[in-house]
Amino acid sequence: MLNSARIISVNTAPPYNVYVGSGLLSGVGSRLAQMLTCRHAAVITDSNVAPLYLGKVVDGLKDAGFAVSSHIFPAGEANKNFETLSGILEFLAQQHLTRSDCIIALGGGVVGDMAGFAAGCYQRGVRCIQIPTTLLSAVDSSVGGKTAINLKAGKNLAGVFLQPTAVFCDTDCLQTLDAATFADGAAEAIKTGILCDEGLFSLFERGDLTGRISEIIARCVAYKAGVVERDEKEMGERKLLNLGHTVGHAIEACSSYTIPHGHAVAAGLAIVARSAETLGWTAEPIAGRIADCLAQNALPVTTDFSAQALAAAAAGDKKRSGSEITIAVPRKIGACELKKIPVSDILPFIQAGLEV
Amino acid sequence: MLNSARIISVNTAPPYNVYVGSGLLSGVGSRLAQMLTCRHAAVITDSNVAPLYLGKVVDGLKDAGFAVSSHIFPAGEANKNFETLSGILEFLAQQHLTRSDCIIALGGGVVGDMAGFAAGCYQRGVRCIQIPTTLLSAVDSSVGGKTAINLKAGKNLAGVFLQPTAVFCDTDCLQTLDAATFADGAAEAIKTGILCDEGLFSLFERGDLTGRISEIIARCVAYKAGVVERDEKEMGERKLLNLGHTVGHAIEACSSYTIPHGHAVAAGLAIVARSAETLGWTAEPIAGRIADCLAQNALPVTTDFSAQALAAAAAGDKKRSGSEITIAVPRKIGACELKKIPVSDILPFIQAGLEV
Repeated sequence: MLNSARIISVNTAPPYNVYVGSGLLSGVGSRLAQMLTCRHAAVITDSNVAPLYLGKVVDGLKDAGFAVSSHIFPAGEANKNFETLSGILEFLAQQHLTRSDCIIALGGGVVGDMAGFAAGCYQRGVRCIQIPTTLLSAVDSSVGGKTAINLKAGKNLAGVFLQPTAVFCDTDCLQTLDAATFADGAAEAIKTGILCDEGLFSLFERGDLTGRISEIIARCVAYKAGVVERDEKEMGERKLLNLGHTVGHAIEACSSYTIPHGHAVAAGLAIVARSAETLGWTAEPIAGRIADCLAQNALPVTTDFSAQALAAAAAGDKKRSGSEITIAVPRKIGACELKKIPVSDILPFIQAGLEV
Repeated sequence: MLNSARIISVNTAPPYNVYVGSGLLSGVGSRLAQMLTCRHAAVITDSNVAPLYLGKVVDGLKDAGFAVSSHIFPAGEANKNFETLSGILEFLAQQHLTRSDCIIALGGGVVGDMAGFAAGCYQRGVRCIQIPTTLLSAVDSSVGGKTAINLKAGKNLAGVFLQPTAVFCDTDCLQTLDAATFADGAAEAIKTGILCDEGLFSLFERGDLTGRISEIIARCVAYKAGVVERDEKEMGERKLLNLGHTVGHAIEACSSYTIPHGHAVAAGLAIVARSAETLGWTAEPIAGRIADCLAQNALPVTTDFSAQALAAAAAGDKKRSGSEITIAVPRKIGACELKKIPVSDILPFIQAGLEV
């Protein structure tokens, strides 16, 4: 029921709402029929999500009067590439989707990134509605308008900014997640706690999640919404959201993307906390507490890759600007800051974090 | 010399200048060094343009202190596709181009579209400088921020809006164009005349172009700049710039893109003028005068494709919205308007224009 959903407004231009709650999925069609004048919706999803939820979403859209096309691509980060993007765009053209119609991204982060990128460049931009079905995409990737594909040279190296028209997080979808996929999302929520919300961090420290998933998603989304409103294109403050990600992305790259995003970010969070503490950049000891919280949530706190390999991968990161790279570092639980360091200092920085 | 160049300001956000004149090419580097803080420039060009102008541009950039990478892709509309885009993006990543660096598009419309699209999505957007080397790209595609690639399903169906950081039109480059390529650009300049500037149209009627190329380009760019300032994302007025293009794009598609853009647009202009006149939508007889002017400039005024084939292709046009399509039609030489017609009326509309 949308009536009982939590609603977070994101005041980008144009603004949009994020709805969080139980039982939202079947009502998406009727809600969109009130919001939009378009009558053709193209649902993009993957081979994991389609058997679970596609029928329910399509039925709701048809009941609300939409003509519906749907496209299913093979699940997995390995498919977040040009081939899949090209397949989606050709599908949209074959279906004669017009500029005034809309795309619906139904799935986890890969689906959100792919369908969002396709929406951002099909006919130079059509509306996109995000329906995240994992905890990771609910707390993170469905909000904020970043879309991307991976290049051979690295993760998320091509994409566009496209703010969604609406986001629907149905918490019932999270029931079907396996433990590792749930933990993947927990990593980003713990990151939010370190960034700005010690109370949120403490929920994960205590393992106190039962009955609180809607609240946790809403707290993460509300914080991210504020940051995105103030810095949509990541010129400054938004870089804070990359806490743990410079090293996390390097771990993903070194593993050829076999290590899931949240797990890599978890190790990145633990490593950057240790580096910051060792370098005297934190206000108090925090590395131990962060590592314990991550471990408590079945997440890794280090990596087997060498500092050399990670530093080489990190030098190609998007946060690099000329010969400097901007890294988000924790001051304490609930407060972080941005540091610019020379690219040549990445290696000793990572090294300091690997020494447990 | 930039000092003697005509300068047209385009007040988009952010604003940029279009420089038009002789001898600009070798000074691009020093001009950019004053405008930008970045020190790495990636020049994207094609196999036709590289032997003529790449050396001069690269030398100028190096003299001005830039580190320069350059990437050459095979010339031709057939290469305006995902493969070429993917190749450019992987090249940029291999060169470790960062978000604060810039891309330089050196070439005709295909290069501008491809390099512009790559700039719009590499790391979610880097600066792009346009150096058009054909009359068509100088008067039309280098200004306005539209970028695109072709899909199998149709032309320019994927792309982004990315306003350039600066545009340099060196009229010396137009000396090397063959007659057909020059005529291709003349078609878009004649279109501008029909849209808003009877004096410009008359120059082409009289064949009075000698020594006036800078002026012609500047008049076309100034008109387009005004339209783009008022309607950057083509919600309304900007659709006027598509005069002749609904039918023109259909001709290109029916020819599998063997008919060049300007030639197809010329036929489209003649056809839409006849349709508008037949339907009583013009203020005075204009179809004959338009056809004569196009023919005078070695451009076609009709097509061998059937109205049925053209209407089917036009139904997939981006200007379609739901079951309607917006078509720009001439009222007289120098004044045009937008008409919304049902998709089912495209066939009789085109049919009226084919009957000479």
